Amino acid sequence: MIDIFTTGGTIDKVYFDALSEYKIGATALPDILAENNVFVAHRVTQLMRKDSLELTDEDRAAIHAAVANSDANKILVTHGTDTMVQTGCILADIPGKTIVITGAMQPATLRNSDAEFNVGFALAATQTLPPGVYIAMNGEVFDPATARKDRAAHRFIHQ
Amino acid sequence: MIDIFTTGGTIDKVYFDALSEYKIGATALPDILAENNVFVAHRVTQLMRKDSLELTDEDRAAIHAAVANSDANKILVTHGTDTMVQTGCILADIPGKTIVITGAMQPATLRNSDAEFNVGFALAATQTLPPGVYIAMNGEVFDPATARKDRAAHRFIHQ
Amino acid sequence: MIDIFTTGGTIDKVYFDALSEYKIGATALPDILAENNVFVAHRVTQLMRKDSLELTDEDRAAIHAAVANSDANKILVTHGTDTMVQTGCILADIPGKTIVITGAMQPATLRNSDAEFNVGFALAATQTLPPGVYIAMNGEVFDPATARKDRAAHRFIHQ
Amino acid sequence: MIDIFTTGGTIDKVYFDALSEYKIGATALPDILAENNVFVAHRVTQLMRKDSLELTDEDRAAIHAAVANSDANKILVTHGTDTMVQTGCILADIPGKTIVITGAMQPATLRNSDAEFNVGFALAATQTLPPGVYIAMNGEVFDPATARKDRAAHRFIHQ
Repeated sequence: MIDIFTTGGTIDKVYFDALSEYKIGATALPDILAENNVFVAHRVTQLMRKDSLELTDEDRAAIHAAVANSDANKILVTHGTDTMVQTGCILADIPGKTIVITGAMQPATLRNSDAEFNVGFALAATQTLPPGVYIAMNGEVFDPATARKDRAAHRFIHQ
Repeated sequence: MIDIFTTGGTIDKVYFDALSEYKIGATALPDILAENNVFVAHRVTQLMRKDSLELTDEDRAAIHAAVANSDANKILVTHGTDTMVQTGCILADIPGKTIVITGAMQPATLRNSDAEFNVGFALAATQTLPPGVYIAMNGEVFDPATARKDRAAHRFIHQ
Repeated sequence: MIDIFTTGGTIDKVYFDALSEYKIGATALPDILAENNVFVAHRVTQLMRKDSLELTDEDRAAIHAAVANSDANKILVTHGTDTMVQTGCILADIPGKTIVITGAMQPATLRNSDAEFNVGFALAATQTLPPGVYIAMNGEVFDPATARKDRAAHRFIHQ
Repeated sequence: MIDIFTTGGTIDKVYFDALSEYKIGATALPDILAENNVFVAHRVTQLMRKDSLELTDEDRAAIHAAVANSDANKILVTHGTDTMVQTGCILADIPGKTIVITGAMQPATLRNSDAEFNVGFALAATQTLPPGVYIAMNGEVFDPATARKDRAAHRFIHQ
């Protein structure tokens, strides 16, 4: 069983015409998994709908609790990219679980989004990596302790 | 370095209006990797443009040679889904390399294709699994020795 | 009321994995109209699911009858592009109706299809042109008597 | 010759990861016309990149001047939907030209955008309607004097 927790971020942004702006909507994960014919046992729980710059200490505590209390030892977290590394560091004290964090630079609702690719990549990492916390972005696995988002380059780098 | 060999299959099918039919075109892999901001070191070689039902013994020997002769020990092969398992079995005697085979049920040119998700998934599997040959489809890793495509269900199963 | 008759053609092609080929499926028109928030009164009838090279004299007689017998005087016909002009010529004897024929060079299921644009264009032409028969392709209105498909150039031209 | 003036609005919105928000980018029109194989003579001029709620009197005067001074008598204007009607009313005093205003409820960069359909529809209206000013939205032609955007229903209505 893979436990998938969604927290919001760009991956879940949809365009609201009524507001003429982008807002974080219902998580894109169930649709992505269904459209790509994923049958491996999993469960999706939407923990929150927040831009990761707006995540509070309480939010991160809630993410930590959800992951720590899960009866699964394979955990996938979708998260905004701006503070993905910070959340990764906070989850590092949870033993015995493979915890993979991913997200997207472009909303899943866009024609040219990296959402499907990233979720596919992260889902494999969740199933194949040993226990620990990992950032899965740009087709690469990063250690939260040494990863950094390079905003200008639209990518994560090992620092 | 990840060596990516493409052989054709549904993932590379494009619609040719002049013929009113689908044909296997130039491989979709470079575009998929570029659009998803993949920077991990890799090399793409298009070995052939064939429907996997049309692959001959010579074709499989050529795939085997390309993989065996590669100086990389992480290999990703894109392949038609119908005989992906057979090719996987033939590659099983190559030691010391992680060889992951993937493809798509719907062409990458389609709006609702599984191509990006599958390539993302396979790219992670290539980097994280120990040496061996694997089928990466439907968000799951299969052993070619026990995998089977269930055409009616549009998915691979462990038999 | 706009009467929309669909006959098949590339616009309605979907990829069948079980056959590893493209087949003409259920018409794409209702989805295209719904996704684009079209509320103008209309009715969609799928007359046949044929590649236009396979249309027989009986098929064209059936299209003629459907159009002639409609109680609407605004008619939109979706049709394969290869013999769209021939069908247009046959419909030319129907008086008092604006009859617009359109289709697509790339299936509506493709990421880069001309289906939505062409249906939008044709729907406007149906509502704004005087009675007569017209081919609506490539962002232009053609007279079937002088239109020709230039296969190599993927476009219709005035000959 | 069709003169196409773009002013911004939702149709031209792209997602900027660096800002985690949507901004109006380079106009989507040239890409839409190229991808849909439009060969009819036209010219695209990006007048401004503004949300239509932010258009000032000076902006509308600039749009009016561009349209009035064009040597073409077929004019297509892309515009945000919120004040499309106001701009339409202001252009109503320009004689001898068919002026069609369109836009989109969802950015052209989205998977399920109405941009291509609407531009196709408007391009036909521009070529087929008599001189006057028209709003082309939701697969229908509206008179700016009696059209209204119903935000809650995501559509224009005749009031």
